[in-house]
Amino acid sequence: MASDGVGEEVRNKQVIFRDYVKGFPKESDMYVTASTIKLQVPEGSNGVLVKNLYLSCDPYMRNRMNPPIYASYIDSFNPGSPISGYGVAKVLDSGHPNFKKGDLVWGITGWEEYSLLSATKALFKIQHTDVPLSHYTGILGMPGMTAYAGFYEVCSPKKGEYVFISAASGAVGQLVGQFAKLLGCYVVGSAGSKDKVDMLKNKFGFDEAFNYKEETDLDAALKRYFPEGIDIYFENVGGKMLDAVLLNMRNHCRIAACGMISQYNLEEHEGVHNLMNLITKQARIGGFLVPDYYHKYPQFLELVLPYIKQGKITYVEDIAEGLESGPAALVGLFTGRNVGKQLVAVARE
Amino acid sequence: MASDGVGEEVRNKQVIFRDYVKGFPKESDMYVTASTIKLQVPEGSNGVLVKNLYLSCDPYMRNRMNPPIYASYIDSFNPGSPISGYGVAKVLDSGHPNFKKGDLVWGITGWEEYSLLSATKALFKIQHTDVPLSHYTGILGMPGMTAYAGFYEVCSPKKGEYVFISAASGAVGQLVGQFAKLLGCYVVGSAGSKDKVDMLKNKFGFDEAFNYKEETDLDAALKRYFPEGIDIYFENVGGKMLDAVLLNMRNHCRIAACGMISQYNLEEHEGVHNLMNLITKQARIGGFLVPDYYHKYPQFLELVLPYIKQGKITYVEDIAEGLESGPAALVGLFTGRNVGKQLVAVARE
Repeated sequence: MASDGVGEEVRNKQVIFRDYVKGFPKESDMYVTASTIKLQVPEGSNGVLVKNLYLSCDPYMRNRMNPPIYASYIDSFNPGSPISGYGVAKVLDSGHPNFKKGDLVWGITGWEEYSLLSATKALFKIQHTDVPLSHYTGILGMPGMTAYAGFYEVCSPKKGEYVFISAASGAVGQLVGQFAKLLGCYVVGSAGSKDKVDMLKNKFGFDEAFNYKEETDLDAALKRYFPEGIDIYFENVGGKMLDAVLLNMRNHCRIAACGMISQYNLEEHEGVHNLMNLITKQARIGGFLVPDYYHKYPQFLELVLPYIKQGKITYVEDIAEGLESGPAALVGLFTGRNVGKQLVAVARE
Repeated sequence: MASDGVGEEVRNKQVIFRDYVKGFPKESDMYVTASTIKLQVPEGSNGVLVKNLYLSCDPYMRNRMNPPIYASYIDSFNPGSPISGYGVAKVLDSGHPNFKKGDLVWGITGWEEYSLLSATKALFKIQHTDVPLSHYTGILGMPGMTAYAGFYEVCSPKKGEYVFISAASGAVGQLVGQFAKLLGCYVVGSAGSKDKVDMLKNKFGFDEAFNYKEETDLDAALKRYFPEGIDIYFENVGGKMLDAVLLNMRNHCRIAACGMISQYNLEEHEGVHNLMNLITKQARIGGFLVPDYYHKYPQFLELVLPYIKQGKITYVEDIAEGLESGPAALVGLFTGRNVGKQLVAVARE
């Protein structure tokens, strides 16, 4: 496709990571610049050259802004280089037998217009294009798999159980809640604004939802919504919310520790005081990382695609337009500015 | 047996719980007195009347000294009544078809010379008497089952894994360590005195052991013994030790939360700061209570009795003589005074 300009040398706008971050990230921790790129895989390379379409803003990316020693489970961003993360892209040129020009992929790419990707193991080929491509940054991508693995695999849910989800309007939380409702659970979510709470109740069908910022006593809030206690907690925030949940568990409660966004910007994480309740309630906390479960992606699609097509799952995206809006969109995650799954539209094919 | 005095009214020395406790329990929180008891099950009762032989001092009993509201998973002791706990006893009279005069049992009994027990569901009949009867307060009783369930069921251990045990010379810890060694694991224990550390290394065959009181930096201590990290942590203490372990986990680490003795006497439990590592290491903490696993007692005996008889497991008891020594023995648990499993010999049949 000549229109893709394969072989040409073109401008490549990029979002560059300025330096390691302490505390809350700021827009100025990144900057947008332009370099050039030849739209061709170098001779002998088995990488792929892609045009980035959608980039995903995910809370875990905060951990990549720490200096290397602190964030051992994942590589830090390199100061002076483009940040990277999940995205949806179109293959313009390929040196890898599994990918060919025109393929659509989702996986780890750069925050730039075009990327030369050598880590093709982190790319999934998109087979279903009768859904919005942007969904592959969320419900059909990493966050969707995270919700699926965390809820079904880590929590072993059963019909009728009492499920609580924090950061419930986010990319992962909104899905966990809907999976839980479809299974016949009682589902309550917490979020950080009235709009999000409304969305949880009216759009995603949660039984109840509350604004944690308006609760002076999280323990009392949970007792209000869970007079009989919590069977499953999908943990996205950590800190005080976790401590309150530990006081409100039913016997054999399962906590899937997916993220602890309330802690990411603290120099020292808050202390959690009520872990003794894990013993008295015979409960468990299981941490997980989604790549461990990517081999189940086909089963996941089999479950979730029909739900989307039949309208049984609702999915809300918060799309920032243009690469330039990337830093603000990413930073906004940590103050809860986004409503629904935050992503950046770089190009629409 | 006329020597048992069935039907007689006899003196019954008792250890009475004075009142609810704050902070470390003291001997004076209990007192010894004597009442009388008729050595016969009342007409129409389906209880059993037992002569208590050995009483078990266990850390969980601290939780029974709290006011009722605080200790929801277990009943508080009743001020003015004898304390109760696990023990070994001989049936003098029975109104229950499953028990007959002369049976030896272990289970929940009173801290007194004779007890009328109505909760016979909490009693196990002792079938094997070719081992010391006192062992049924420990290796062959609740602590043994705790070690078995926590290690095999909660931790799913594999040969060659790196295992850390806190309070390792206690009734449960010493067994977990030996189970782990028999499975071919690398085993390190922590304890609170030089004697206990020596015992772990020289008597129980731990690969390494250290005195946590001599370590100013628990993280550094764990890094010294586990340069590659910890696969399994058997948690008996909580607080700072748990925080240090969280910094030294290998991927997919499993923590069996059995007890948190370092926290029982604090008004507010210490904060644990490193839970985020559960996510990055895909690790889990599982709390458990041993009664959930009592249905596996026969399998447990099949495993452990041969080990004892073949000398493959060593077991150390710290026996206090006489009911009068009970309060000091129980209180001593919380300052680490005991070496090995603490129990009280009330009578030797």
